[in-house]
Amino acid sequence: MSGILIGVDLGATMVRAGAFTPGGEMLAVDQVEIEARRGPEQGFQRLCNLVENLLSQTALHGERLLGVGVGSTGPVDALTGVIVNPGTLPGWEAVPLVAWLEKYFSAPAFLDNDAAVAALGEYWMGAGRGVARLYAVTLGTGIGTSCVIDGQTYRGAGGFHPEGGHQVIDPGGPLCYCGAHGCWESLASGTAIARNARAALVKHPDSILLRLAEGDPGRIDARIVAEAALQGDSLARGVIGRAAEYFALGLFNLLMLFFPEVIVLSGGVMHSSELFMPALGRMLQNATPYLPTSQVDIRLAQLGYYSGIYGAAYAIMRRVSPHDLGS
Amino acid sequence: MSGILIGVDLGATMVRAGAFTPGGEMLAVDQVEIEARRGPEQGFQRLCNLVENLLSQTALHGERLLGVGVGSTGPVDALTGVIVNPGTLPGWEAVPLVAWLEKYFSAPAFLDNDAAVAALGEYWMGAGRGVARLYAVTLGTGIGTSCVIDGQTYRGAGGFHPEGGHQVIDPGGPLCYCGAHGCWESLASGTAIARNARAALVKHPDSILLRLAEGDPGRIDARIVAEAALQGDSLARGVIGRAAEYFALGLFNLLMLFFPEVIVLSGGVMHSSELFMPALGRMLQNATPYLPTSQVDIRLAQLGYYSGIYGAAYAIMRRVSPHDLGS
Repeated sequence: MSGILIGVDLGATMVRAGAFTPGGEMLAVDQVEIEARRGPEQGFQRLCNLVENLLSQTALHGERLLGVGVGSTGPVDALTGVIVNPGTLPGWEAVPLVAWLEKYFSAPAFLDNDAAVAALGEYWMGAGRGVARLYAVTLGTGIGTSCVIDGQTYRGAGGFHPEGGHQVIDPGGPLCYCGAHGCWESLASGTAIARNARAALVKHPDSILLRLAEGDPGRIDARIVAEAALQGDSLARGVIGRAAEYFALGLFNLLMLFFPEVIVLSGGVMHSSELFMPALGRMLQNATPYLPTSQVDIRLAQLGYYSGIYGAAYAIMRRVSPHDLGS
Repeated sequence: MSGILIGVDLGATMVRAGAFTPGGEMLAVDQVEIEARRGPEQGFQRLCNLVENLLSQTALHGERLLGVGVGSTGPVDALTGVIVNPGTLPGWEAVPLVAWLEKYFSAPAFLDNDAAVAALGEYWMGAGRGVARLYAVTLGTGIGTSCVIDGQTYRGAGGFHPEGGHQVIDPGGPLCYCGAHGCWESLASGTAIARNARAALVKHPDSILLRLAEGDPGRIDARIVAEAALQGDSLARGVIGRAAEYFALGLFNLLMLFFPEVIVLSGGVMHSSELFMPALGRMLQNATPYLPTSQVDIRLAQLGYYSGIYGAAYAIMRRVSPHDLGS
């Protein structure tokens, strides 16, 4: 197969796009602010201008456009190609992005949520290249999950993506906005880390956290807690240590339920992955004798901010590739 | 496709076999004691005689044998067709059952564990007929799980079956033989129900449990606890109620991680399903707003003791059917 694949990563503030060959070579990449508040029509035009610009840069290759894939901040309806109503893109309600793109570019288009598409990127050209059963976990403000089986995103009934971040791992835990007590996200996410650190300040007046947050507890986030932990702050180390144990527990359940070859970790909190890896290693070593969990490979994502555009390009390639038309 | 499919259910005490058409009609069924302690060679001969007998019964149909599928008490290695070393079949160590069967019958054979095969039976002709994403849970002495996607058993790395019964749902819970604290099986299985009921006897001398167990606490099992609960015994109702809440919590996690169309429940404890259904109903209604969990259908298995032979026949059919040869 020859031609150009476009992968788009539509975020709350930026839209990024890349042009790829079917072999996974990135020919060009660019980004602009989406300025979502100006509404979906203007945002769509900015997205199209960005893609047109990439296509003119790659025109010297003389290749035709095979299709446009988009990973967008959710929720999206991947089956109908519609951006549903993301809190992060105010006013973008029921935007039929795939229909708009296919009309504008006269080429196939595809839309899915950013986490699912980023996992495909790592499968295609990143840390999970060619892995038969790949489970991707993004640990940031929340916890996002995506399971990729033979290069395809696993979907549940009605095309819905599972919500692995909201599995319950300790019913005595805090109430999450999802309605459950002690779900994974409520115990191990960046938000949980920041919240627990703020709550612990009273008992640890000697902590360096407040100084790192310039005296404002409201500014404490997971990045600052991780920084304090790396500097040896005992409050921060305690908070991160507990979050790491809960993070390992959630991964343990993924092993018990999916037993993938590889788990790929990404997200802002994973920038301090050295604080989490010891707990994950203990979990893998101590897990059930019934599954050889120590053989499971837990890896950090490799594509960074580009995982979304790689994955979006791969997703549309799967759809236009003849041998995958049935899938 | 025409011909005869043989499905075999190899248990700790009995081996059952059925002859089926590719359309799912059961033509004949029979069973004998396996007498496992006499060793695998004698057991194999009993199995073969049983199958021969079925074939002679169905010979009037004039159809050739398409293949023999077997669901066996585990662990088994489905990739190599070998019974590994089941505690329930003492002395059956590294038995190459598929090779033996293929030589004896000059036809393709297939082996998998009993829980996986029973789930396929419910997919083929039972409560989950034709469901795209089916999750089967057996609640008995332990908790067994199997995920069937488009009629194929989901397997993890190295062909291993996931162990959904050992997902952790309350890390403050009891230590399981699997090595984890508070896994699903340790909190909601028939074994957990019996253990919790015995432990609660001291505080409930008025309970009818002891009488139902003929005065011997060692005889209390989940069936007796369920019977006492149905008669209104408060100890038994409390124990079953807590187990039902934990059972619902584990199912909640399956919804979050797989979001199947249908969950099929089977196993001895489910003979008292009316004691569990209220907790499951509350879980479905109260679950996260991010997935339409109230649309998920939780059903009781329909094939009873025959789910294994149906599923084993279906599994071998999938393997010999031309359009599935690649799977």
